[in-house]
Amino acid sequence: MAGTAERMAKNQKQVAISEFFEKNKHFLGFDSLTRSLITAVKEAVDNSLDACEEARILPDIRVKITKLDDKKNIVELQTEDNGPGIPKRSIEKVFGQLLFGSRFHAIRQSRGQQGIGITGVVMYCQLTTGQKTHVRSKIATETSAAVVDIGLDTRKNKATKSNEGRELWELEDGTLKEHGLEVTCRMKAKYQRGRQSVYQYLRMTSIVNPHADITFVDPDGDVHHWPRVTERLPRKVESIKPHPHGIHLGTLQRMCTESTDSRMTSFLYKNFSGVSTRAAKQLLEAAEIEEKGKPKSMKPDQIRALIEAFQGERVLNGKPVKLLNPPTNCLSPIEELLIKKGLSKTIDSRFVTTMTRSPTVSQGNPYQVEVGLIFGDGMAADKPVEVLRFANRVPLMYQQGGCLLTKAIESVDWRQYGLDQAGGRGVPKGPAAILVHLASTNVQFTSEAKEALADNGEVMDEVRKAMLEMGRGLRKHLEKKKKMVKVQEKFELVNDIIPAIAEKSAMILKRPVPNLAGSITKIMGAVIAESTTAWNKETKMTDVSITLFNYTSRARAYTLLASWPEREGATMEGNDTGGRKEATGVWAWKLETLEPGQTYTIKYALKGLEKGDWTDTDVFYRGSQEVIGASKMDEKLLEEIRRQEARAEEEEAPADPVEHKAAPAQEAAAPVAVEEGPRPTSQQTLMGFGSDR
Amino acid sequence: MAGTAERMAKNQKQVAISEFFEKNKHFLGFDSLTRSLITAVKEAVDNSLDACEEARILPDIRVKITKLDDKKNIVELQTEDNGPGIPKRSIEKVFGQLLFGSRFHAIRQSRGQQGIGITGVVMYCQLTTGQKTHVRSKIATETSAAVVDIGLDTRKNKATKSNEGRELWELEDGTLKEHGLEVTCRMKAKYQRGRQSVYQYLRMTSIVNPHADITFVDPDGDVHHWPRVTERLPRKVESIKPHPHGIHLGTLQRMCTESTDSRMTSFLYKNFSGVSTRAAKQLLEAAEIEEKGKPKSMKPDQIRALIEAFQGERVLNGKPVKLLNPPTNCLSPIEELLIKKGLSKTIDSRFVTTMTRSPTVSQGNPYQVEVGLIFGDGMAADKPVEVLRFANRVPLMYQQGGCLLTKAIESVDWRQYGLDQAGGRGVPKGPAAILVHLASTNVQFTSEAKEALADNGEVMDEVRKAMLEMGRGLRKHLEKKKKMVKVQEKFELVNDIIPAIAEKSAMILKRPVPNLAGSITKIMGAVIAESTTAWNKETKMTDVSITLFNYTSRARAYTLLASWPEREGATMEGNDTGGRKEATGVWAWKLETLEPGQTYTIKYALKGLEKGDWTDTDVFYRGSQEVIGASKMDEKLLEEIRRQEARAEEEEAPADPVEHKAAPAQEAAAPVAVEEGPRPTSQQTLMGFGSDR
Repeated sequence: MAGTAERMAKNQKQVAISEFFEKNKHFLGFDSLTRSLITAVKEAVDNSLDACEEARILPDIRVKITKLDDKKNIVELQTEDNGPGIPKRSIEKVFGQLLFGSRFHAIRQSRGQQGIGITGVVMYCQLTTGQKTHVRSKIATETSAAVVDIGLDTRKNKATKSNEGRELWELEDGTLKEHGLEVTCRMKAKYQRGRQSVYQYLRMTSIVNPHADITFVDPDGDVHHWPRVTERLPRKVESIKPHPHGIHLGTLQRMCTESTDSRMTSFLYKNFSGVSTRAAKQLLEAAEIEEKGKPKSMKPDQIRALIEAFQGERVLNGKPVKLLNPPTNCLSPIEELLIKKGLSKTIDSRFVTTMTRSPTVSQGNPYQVEVGLIFGDGMAADKPVEVLRFANRVPLMYQQGGCLLTKAIESVDWRQYGLDQAGGRGVPKGPAAILVHLASTNVQFTSEAKEALADNGEVMDEVRKAMLEMGRGLRKHLEKKKKMVKVQEKFELVNDIIPAIAEKSAMILKRPVPNLAGSITKIMGAVIAESTTAWNKETKMTDVSITLFNYTSRARAYTLLASWPEREGATMEGNDTGGRKEATGVWAWKLETLEPGQTYTIKYALKGLEKGDWTDTDVFYRGSQEVIGASKMDEKLLEEIRRQEARAEEEEAPADPVEHKAAPAQEAAAPVAVEEGPRPTSQQTLMGFGSDR
Repeated sequence: MAGTAERMAKNQKQVAISEFFEKNKHFLGFDSLTRSLITAVKEAVDNSLDACEEARILPDIRVKITKLDDKKNIVELQTEDNGPGIPKRSIEKVFGQLLFGSRFHAIRQSRGQQGIGITGVVMYCQLTTGQKTHVRSKIATETSAAVVDIGLDTRKNKATKSNEGRELWELEDGTLKEHGLEVTCRMKAKYQRGRQSVYQYLRMTSIVNPHADITFVDPDGDVHHWPRVTERLPRKVESIKPHPHGIHLGTLQRMCTESTDSRMTSFLYKNFSGVSTRAAKQLLEAAEIEEKGKPKSMKPDQIRALIEAFQGERVLNGKPVKLLNPPTNCLSPIEELLIKKGLSKTIDSRFVTTMTRSPTVSQGNPYQVEVGLIFGDGMAADKPVEVLRFANRVPLMYQQGGCLLTKAIESVDWRQYGLDQAGGRGVPKGPAAILVHLASTNVQFTSEAKEALADNGEVMDEVRKAMLEMGRGLRKHLEKKKKMVKVQEKFELVNDIIPAIAEKSAMILKRPVPNLAGSITKIMGAVIAESTTAWNKETKMTDVSITLFNYTSRARAYTLLASWPEREGATMEGNDTGGRKEATGVWAWKLETLEPGQTYTIKYALKGLEKGDWTDTDVFYRGSQEVIGASKMDEKLLEEIRRQEARAEEEEAPADPVEHKAAPAQEAAAPVAVEEGPRPTSQQTLMGFGSDR
């Protein structure tokens, strides 16, 4: 035994971060030849999209994969963007040094966060082919582009460079590239088609980045192009300060130690979001700390008391100190219409519903959940629903089973919403696809490869709520469809057979054919609404038509209401039947009394949209007799939504009017007080207006 | 646009590894309050087990959890072991510095590898409670124990220390502790019962570490004790050199650059496993490199050529250069009997089958798969089978869905083996538990938290094969059981009813009761074997009894064979019926001819085992008429196994005889040539002897 401990201790040494990730390259997503290629594409494209957004450039991205040696699985990957480029002196750090980047400490939504991604690619290439990665970077302020080959000294976590120089970056048309980045690297990898492929990754990326133009040249030389479907860049995200609710004791300790502030009040006010000067004073009072105390000289007990005040465990006058929520302009959701657009373009189908929930906060981190569901033709009915997962606009391709987003879907009993599901658990079966997107300033993945979200109760609840609401929409759609089909069948039967019988009888009896309107009405005994929403190629508008049939034996009076994409900037054209606005995105028509057998039609066109933007109009009614094919208006919900609108307008008033115009549907950037009335459960999705919620 | 690139570059900076993991603590398993506690226990216990094994000490481990503040979820965790301890000067590095450790570069099986685990615990404690971790360490060569409180300066990845000193470590009985380590830390965490709990983790740990004695004091003060079930330490694992098949180009490049060897031949011979001097010369010839070339001055093209020779892409005389497999003494499997023991003790059940497959190699890394299956009473029949996953003797508690081991289980069509499974995919349902253990020098996890294995085609195949073989065993068991039940029913019916009828008839007819033996035999028409294997409390031996009934109308001659745990050191006692050894673990009895209606019984006892070690004896037969309740011997397989034994004996001959005696069932440590005949598909599992494989 003597000496064992010493002998064992002698073998211990420090490992460099690059050595660590070289050995554990599977943590970074380099575990199989197929996945390694997808990971490399992902890291490069994510960086391009982040850089373009930050520089407010509409991204043009080109990805090219060439097989260099099919037998030995050597592949060349080239990616090119029109981003701002990287200054020459920064290139080696960005590509050749792990944990180097700008986004690690910033609290805002971005794809990259860790400063690992692209350096990991350079490392994997060097490891598997021994070759450096060629970088060409052109920034706007210089005439020529910087070029260099970058490798990695893993023992030191430093770049190695060769062939450094400058050159003119000529485009195909002979002009010079203004700005952008091109990365060319060679690696051991395998190109593959299918559900987990570069093609699929780029296709998914185009769904959640409708502002990006993406071109992919595959190893066969085939060119795949996903054009941008909107010219509108995602909202610019701003970095925010940490919120007291998300601060750990150890972090506060360090912040105090490193602070140069002279007073605790200014320390709190300046370094945290959601803390007004008044709140700062109250927090200190609750923690029994002097306002003019120096952050640097805070004792452990005082810091603990302050954390307790942050978390409402220490109270003032019997109540926790009120803090504002962090601002949500650090988030950039995709928004319902754009998701719908992306989904409809990619998967041609019948019923599409989407939902962007309001931003919320978990442990001081703002986040927002968006979901979409497509149901209908062209999808396998006997297979599990396709799950499309996204985090901060990045498609997640692997580790589906271990991901919080999947678990949230699995936790819903989809049987009650019309999908098959063994035991009411697990991914449901049916002709559908479910999309779920988490936008957050701090997406917690299970590993550096960023393919699955780690467990978090609050996020789980939020995703579940969105799923349930979407599920209710699906159920309503299916019920409506079923009812309509039945009524339609009955109607056709009645309209075809009864007149035929009448005619035959009349002929045999040699009597005139009787008037049957009354009889048909009697048999049908229902008020029916039929609506169509269709793209008009010639006018480039979306034509909407709503018809109300009174097949009952009494006169009926209704107000009809319809959803329309007002907040997406559409206008209503040729609405000759008048009506009035009930709320943003809800139009109402008070109809004259319909006599038995009478019909009324509303027609209008939506201008300012593109094909696929608006494929389904929700129709609601006010009136005592049920209308088949429409939902009864939920007046309470409508009222609540009007109240929210009024509040949002008040808050938005001081904001930059240009920004306001560009994104009118956005949540206000100003902080919302935590203590204010009930938080709206979702941005107004018209789907939710029906009274059977 | 001008200046954007520069402005963006300005924000970039280097992040320290500790800052990285502090922000991404969920990568390390600190994602929820419950899991954080399990992670902390796991890191401490894994370290203790590793240290004890390396120092060849039978581990005594004590874990104590105390709730300090139930409302604020503050918990104290204390772990204590009897390991070698850590010398004073090393403590701060082991506990306060990330990526510091002894196992990162070593190629051998161990629980810890990364030098992250316990430092992560210290970091998490500091972050959530602001408190340092108290360490007490006693090494054998010093009288007093070293004590110190350790924290972490995350900006510098350095330890911070306080209250350093020395003290006498007195035990409860007043004596001084010889050697060991005690860690006490406070963290925000939650103690919870259930499937994912500290209790369950320790219980699972005791299954795969039968040599460890584990005590757990839970927050209620209840003491749970899992005593060791074997005094035999796992085989000592030796570090091996990397194998050419697992070397990446970039790694070889670095090895050459850093080498001080003067010739390539000695460089290859000295730095790689599986390379003889002859193979070294051949590799160089194939790569067209001079033998006396200096490693340091190898050109990129030469290194590429050498890699190609390593991988058999460059050939010599039309053939790839033959390399030996890496030695497998770097692995320490649990072994079938011990798994069986652990399983039987923990889950009391009917049918237990286990299997340790032969070590094999993936990308130069030796690995070995072990599986176990329990089927029977006491488990829910309508729920998914319990999956127990282990890697290098560590239970994996989270991320089941994303783990390779689960995927391998899900990929098997279990319906053909008697378990329910919707669509022949996914985790099967039934009253069963499946255990799977991967022992490897390089376990590839999906993240630092080490809870799920990353995808690897070769390992997947190997686990699948083991599952299929186990599945066949289960099917045979179920078929045998079904057949026996049927025969038993028939037998009871025949034996009860026919004599009753005969008696009644004889009474009515006033005639004597006829002799019915012939009639019963005629109705049964079968040869039946019945065996029992039972623990005898008094003799402390396992009693085995095998009875053969000839219920046919003809005389029958058989040889019966039975499996017995010879390689686990058991001896056969009181075997009065003689017989002879057929192969290691297989005994045979040539029986005299059995006349119709005759019965023969074999009885013996197994000495040297403990209760639960041996619960089921496989019975085989040689003979033309089928024996219900036994399997026909597969002679070819038996022959193959005898050949393997002869070969293994030859190879084992020069080994240390003591070591040999201690672990007679182990694979030879000497390298096995890759080119030798077909690799045995598994260590001889008697289950596989039946001819219906």
